[in-house]
Amino acid sequence: MAVNLSTPNPADLLPVPGVRLGVAEAGIRKANRRDLTLIELAAGSRVSGVFTQNRFCAAPVQVCKAHIAGGAIRALVINTGIANAGTGESGLAAANATCAAVADLLGIKAGQVLPFSTGVILEPLPVDRLVAGLPKARGALRADGWFDAAHAIMTTDTLPKAVSRTVQVGGRTVTLSGISKGAGMIRPNMATMLGFVACDAAVSQALLDELVREAADLSFNSITVDGDTSTNDSFIVIATGQAGNAEITEAAGSDWAALREALIDVSVRLAQAIVRDGEGATKFMSIAVEGGADREECRKVAYAVAHSPLVKTAFFASDPNLGRILAAIGYAGIADLDVGRLRVWLGNPDESVLVAEHGGRAASYVEEAGARIMAHSELTVRIDLARGEALATVWTCDFSYDYVKINADYRS
Amino acid sequence: MAVNLSTPNPADLLPVPGVRLGVAEAGIRKANRRDLTLIELAAGSRVSGVFTQNRFCAAPVQVCKAHIAGGAIRALVINTGIANAGTGESGLAAANATCAAVADLLGIKAGQVLPFSTGVILEPLPVDRLVAGLPKARGALRADGWFDAAHAIMTTDTLPKAVSRTVQVGGRTVTLSGISKGAGMIRPNMATMLGFVACDAAVSQALLDELVREAADLSFNSITVDGDTSTNDSFIVIATGQAGNAEITEAAGSDWAALREALIDVSVRLAQAIVRDGEGATKFMSIAVEGGADREECRKVAYAVAHSPLVKTAFFASDPNLGRILAAIGYAGIADLDVGRLRVWLGNPDESVLVAEHGGRAASYVEEAGARIMAHSELTVRIDLARGEALATVWTCDFSYDYVKINADYRS
Repeated sequence: MAVNLSTPNPADLLPVPGVRLGVAEAGIRKANRRDLTLIELAAGSRVSGVFTQNRFCAAPVQVCKAHIAGGAIRALVINTGIANAGTGESGLAAANATCAAVADLLGIKAGQVLPFSTGVILEPLPVDRLVAGLPKARGALRADGWFDAAHAIMTTDTLPKAVSRTVQVGGRTVTLSGISKGAGMIRPNMATMLGFVACDAAVSQALLDELVREAADLSFNSITVDGDTSTNDSFIVIATGQAGNAEITEAAGSDWAALREALIDVSVRLAQAIVRDGEGATKFMSIAVEGGADREECRKVAYAVAHSPLVKTAFFASDPNLGRILAAIGYAGIADLDVGRLRVWLGNPDESVLVAEHGGRAASYVEEAGARIMAHSELTVRIDLARGEALATVWTCDFSYDYVKINADYRS
Repeated sequence: MAVNLSTPNPADLLPVPGVRLGVAEAGIRKANRRDLTLIELAAGSRVSGVFTQNRFCAAPVQVCKAHIAGGAIRALVINTGIANAGTGESGLAAANATCAAVADLLGIKAGQVLPFSTGVILEPLPVDRLVAGLPKARGALRADGWFDAAHAIMTTDTLPKAVSRTVQVGGRTVTLSGISKGAGMIRPNMATMLGFVACDAAVSQALLDELVREAADLSFNSITVDGDTSTNDSFIVIATGQAGNAEITEAAGSDWAALREALIDVSVRLAQAIVRDGEGATKFMSIAVEGGADREECRKVAYAVAHSPLVKTAFFASDPNLGRILAAIGYAGIADLDVGRLRVWLGNPDESVLVAEHGGRAASYVEEAGARIMAHSELTVRIDLARGEALATVWTCDFSYDYVKINADYRS
């Protein structure tokens, strides 16, 4: 049961000039299932990405990193079912064969193709079936293929995740559309968070690289379901340059600001959708830390709270358990934290209540207020460290019986 | 349901010359419950301890640290029911008043008393009821009080935890007895891991301080149930010096080696008992990492595996899920880890099987072997990083429906 998330309306998903998407049933792991997505980019598109830090980095991620460094990317190919991770040299060969097949089909070079895989790890990718499905995916290529692609990249997600919006940049309308998948930072063997955002803005490669890192930091790198990091996580931003705006080449000015705001907004909404569809989730929680000496310590505190199984089970029970929140802040690893100065609020979209100050429960806090706030499914824990000006927000979900059920019962 | 842990036989718990223990029902939080323990130490005893790193350090922990620095400790007083944490200045006053009352009763100074509290946090300690119970605890003081004390320090533990053994040191028999409590690193509001070990060896204060840090590192600091660190965690080692051995003053020689081995052994068994009694535990897991460049990176890898909710739920399901284990190793934070060189074994007390090598599943591994191993309740994950000579082992338990149930349903 996803938290305040529903299937997007296909009419709300906007074509991005320069981008066409097609899906097919390739029978990668199961029959009668759309499991192959091809994304074709117009010549001149710029592409940037960030990838998993996991040392068990999947074969397609290794190939992506190599190809993206070469530039001039013209196609993305995404399969579900098999993650092609933990597969050694033969896994690399499979990812390269996939790129070669896409290149043949589209008349481009293999180095201009980025491959992505998500699904069971430690199993070989059936390249023959994947390649056999490519012509059908190519035949299905269309500018309004975002809705289908959002479905075709799902593994155990309960809902497709897609977002579009427009923004004015240099007097032109820039369109952004994106899709994401993932229902935990990693599913049992069904690994992977994937995020793809395309826009038609004209922006230099250097700025696009800067923007993808910042957007990832503020979105996909600010969520957690269970603290596990997958072997295949990838976030890709595409700029086709067809909107007609004057190319943005400096990280300054209103054009840059508008594009930056819009891209971060789309990325955050796609990332939050993953948490809303988190395994067994019944609550969506924002952990907003302010007053830190730097952003890194704010993130430490936010993640300590967001990862605490005790906090997460308390939120599942709608229990405003201050002790667990304070204890998590206390062990976040800030050696000189003055607990006497920090303050904590619990909130929902209707109200926010100061619950802790001076090293303990706030004098004004009554349990009824806490219970009233926790009855909501959208919750905020706001923490003021009173040490500086830095901020960070992390989004997570609660920890329910269903989380254990999903992860204990799952068999690949 | 504890994993391979039973109530100790009272006859197996040995008196330690110089140590007497007494318990009482003080009605701290609930009536008709032994909730107060007094431990009296003979003059000349040496005491050392390590305490929680949580910044929300409870009042009694703050007082303990101050008093232990002054030396000449003669008594320990432990209450359950209320943790006296997150209680500010009045909490400190309550802990100091407790020490003063014990000192009056025993004719010693308040600074010679160490106070410990465990139970609900953010609630005031009822000092009057605690003090009123002290004469009865004093009247109950006896050398063979270990079994009663193991019961009286329990909160939500399902079983008492106590261990005794002897060791020959310098031609004399040294006796060690210890008790511990804790059923998670922290219980909902019932915070705290406590461990107390006493021996009658004669050992210098400097070496005792060194030994308590080493023993804590290899025992209580090598366990995890849920990754949460309590506000009150304390581990105390007492050496009364009454065994008659020549005082050990150097960290060398057979006397030191014998005492060190015995103290670490007792500490490890007490720490493991906490994991065996972990919330909802059905499996006891040793994560043994070897071949590390240093101990710290071995611990990082072991804790990444031990903390992964995905690994823990897989073990609950008796699922030999290699992908989750490899992914956890991969995100442990060792930037230059060569996953192609590492090897992983799964084992139980009967057999051990190589499951992963060369970056993926071992060619020799068959799922039946994994399933056979996982059918046991005592499991080992052995990981060879193939980078050096360092080792570290961490003990943990699985993650079950009952963990969520206990932590979501619990109301203080």
